[in-house]
Amino acid sequence: MEKYEIAVRNGIVLTMDDEMKVFSPGSIGIEDGEIRYVGGDEVRGEEEIDARGCIVTPGFVNCHTHSPMTLFRNAFEDQPLEKWLKEYVWPVEARLKPEHVKVGALVAAAEMALNGVTCFNDMYFYMDQVAEAVVEVGIRGVLSEGLVELFSDRASEEILRKGTEFARRYHGWKGMIWAALGPHAEYSCSLEFLRRVREEADRLGVGIHIHLAETKPPVDEFVRAHGKTPIKALDEIGFLRNDVLIAHAIYLDDEDLRIIRERDVAVAYNPVSNMKLASGAARIEEMMRVGIRVGLGTDGPGSNNTLDMIQDMKIASLLQKLKYMDPSSLPARSVVRMATRGGAEALNLDHMIGSIEVGKRADIVVINTRKVRYQPIRDPYTALTYCGSGSDVRDVIVDGRIIVRDGVLQTIDLEKVLEEFERAVSDLFG
Amino acid sequence: MEKYEIAVRNGIVLTMDDEMKVFSPGSIGIEDGEIRYVGGDEVRGEEEIDARGCIVTPGFVNCHTHSPMTLFRNAFEDQPLEKWLKEYVWPVEARLKPEHVKVGALVAAAEMALNGVTCFNDMYFYMDQVAEAVVEVGIRGVLSEGLVELFSDRASEEILRKGTEFARRYHGWKGMIWAALGPHAEYSCSLEFLRRVREEADRLGVGIHIHLAETKPPVDEFVRAHGKTPIKALDEIGFLRNDVLIAHAIYLDDEDLRIIRERDVAVAYNPVSNMKLASGAARIEEMMRVGIRVGLGTDGPGSNNTLDMIQDMKIASLLQKLKYMDPSSLPARSVVRMATRGGAEALNLDHMIGSIEVGKRADIVVINTRKVRYQPIRDPYTALTYCGSGSDVRDVIVDGRIIVRDGVLQTIDLEKVLEEFERAVSDLFG
Repeated sequence: MEKYEIAVRNGIVLTMDDEMKVFSPGSIGIEDGEIRYVGGDEVRGEEEIDARGCIVTPGFVNCHTHSPMTLFRNAFEDQPLEKWLKEYVWPVEARLKPEHVKVGALVAAAEMALNGVTCFNDMYFYMDQVAEAVVEVGIRGVLSEGLVELFSDRASEEILRKGTEFARRYHGWKGMIWAALGPHAEYSCSLEFLRRVREEADRLGVGIHIHLAETKPPVDEFVRAHGKTPIKALDEIGFLRNDVLIAHAIYLDDEDLRIIRERDVAVAYNPVSNMKLASGAARIEEMMRVGIRVGLGTDGPGSNNTLDMIQDMKIASLLQKLKYMDPSSLPARSVVRMATRGGAEALNLDHMIGSIEVGKRADIVVINTRKVRYQPIRDPYTALTYCGSGSDVRDVIVDGRIIVRDGVLQTIDLEKVLEEFERAVSDLFG
Repeated sequence: MEKYEIAVRNGIVLTMDDEMKVFSPGSIGIEDGEIRYVGGDEVRGEEEIDARGCIVTPGFVNCHTHSPMTLFRNAFEDQPLEKWLKEYVWPVEARLKPEHVKVGALVAAAEMALNGVTCFNDMYFYMDQVAEAVVEVGIRGVLSEGLVELFSDRASEEILRKGTEFARRYHGWKGMIWAALGPHAEYSCSLEFLRRVREEADRLGVGIHIHLAETKPPVDEFVRAHGKTPIKALDEIGFLRNDVLIAHAIYLDDEDLRIIRERDVAVAYNPVSNMKLASGAARIEEMMRVGIRVGLGTDGPGSNNTLDMIQDMKIASLLQKLKYMDPSSLPARSVVRMATRGGAEALNLDHMIGSIEVGKRADIVVINTRKVRYQPIRDPYTALTYCGSGSDVRDVIVDGRIIVRDGVLQTIDLEKVLEEFERAVSDLFG
């Protein structure tokens, strides 16, 4: 029997490879942070994880969030978006210091790790602090400084520089961080600014992360002002390419969809946030049908309020079924793929992560599906999607390192971080 | 310090009483299965549950399910309702034996107990088996034989007798079971049959549980056949009174809503099932505004697929926000109330259960909200609704008996039941 540094044994392994192979029982052998074996044979390891009765998946990829917003969680809720932002979020954000962002991001990264999220796409500010938090917890992050041009007193080039400086410094940092440029949205950045962002992204060789067409009024306003939709306008300035990920993408017409597909732009679908803020339902089923790369996102903890991709998979599917009034929309297999490999593809990281295949980095999640709520498991995609909870995640491996074991985070002193977090919350909100 | 048989100490206690009082820290004293103290004082107990940092709620009341359908969980998924029923459910149901129903109901009752559901409203067949399962697990059930008149070879009176015989025998059984009559739906029972059900319910002094207006085609067909909506037709035959609970109630016009309110009929809202089967979204926010009693239901494990009321609270709120395109729809406080006291009211059991008040029976749930995903808790209604999972339920008391402790069911041998369940599934599905 082959012996590896780490062996995951006897699980129900969803590889998410091209053939969507499932090994049950299946084993995984890991060496030097890399997957060296996956299949039906028994393997041994210096360290072993017994996954009997457990579903084993690639790490979940959270394609859109604002991690430090754990600070804003569970208050001033059930409010319209504008009121929530203007009366609650923005006044507090004006007082945010780097150390608040750090501890907010630590809590978010810890929560994601415990929920099996091994990589996430984040936009906020003081992103150097977020990078530190991500590396301390031991997951992966694609990070961008949020660039709000139009509502700022500062010069556009100065705002852009904030983004490019972060990207230059952190892209590739410690092998776990990638940078992107994060122009905030179609209503908070001018077209000229977005053209400059495109130029800088090309120069730096990083991707772009932007909110787009999240709610109807700004899209209508954009069309009134420019005589065309945001997508068409962005396409005309050459902004849209396969390194762009647009979050939300709800208010799109057929021509917008065609452009997104043709330019191979990726989309982050955020079903919980889109329902909670009453934004609407994106045309995900149609996007998938024409081959647009779609990843799943939780959005920030202020509008969800968890960072639980497993729970969100269910809601992702339910929302599409309701939108199209068709129970076969976004079935379980598709949504599990979207939350793992689809996310890796959307972030252009699928050469490294997103599936359990020999040669990929070892980002692996063991979910305790021996609990009553999953029985009988029958189809593991279905059991995971419709019966699952991030609270049932038991073990998490990232880059060949066991960062969660038996539901306990191994990398940081969580009690201490939560105490600091409570102090930051008191400090900010009084 | 007062000493009780059982003391729940230092929790964040949501009483769900008329004033929605919250004690944090709060304690509960229990004696003879009854709540004798709730408030901010320290209490002691012969048995103690330390609920520090945990949210403590009344037991959740699942207002509509078909518990033995755990047998059908996680297979033949993402299918249209009719195909799912005709090609999968009905052929297997024709082979169901009482012992299958028993073990299916045991698994469901165990799952509910572990998720903090202490009372549920169930419709299926072989309900004597379900009653046994409920009592073995130690929760409460309102049980009705599902009476499908129109698609049956048997005489209507014979079908009705099945329901009345069960009700006569089990209403009040062991203090934990109530019976109801369960005419299946407006499309599977004639008006004459429903008139007879009403008579028998009056004679027996039990309530009525019926599916109504779940999908559009049968309602349209009913209007074509009778020249009026099902609600109007039922009202004209005197069927609608405050002991009737209608499940789903999606396709209602304004006049239907007015009648439901005037007759004080209760409604079970099943957001997950309604989305999963692409049935539609009920007008719950409007019902609440005019004071209709609304409880929350999971529906059967075949169309959800869990029996997790905490997770469903989130989806309940999200669906109303999307339906009305208003993020203030069905806020967290309302949905927690709906899932506890609202359910007790809908089942006319609120004199006994549904809130943590002196004199009520002790049905109490302790949720481990010390986990990262709930932090900072701030508003406990919000934290529970938007961050919650049934998997975080730690301790459950029903009628003053601790049936779940540290996440472990105390009342039945779960491993053994799951083995029997696996055999039943193999037996039925081959």
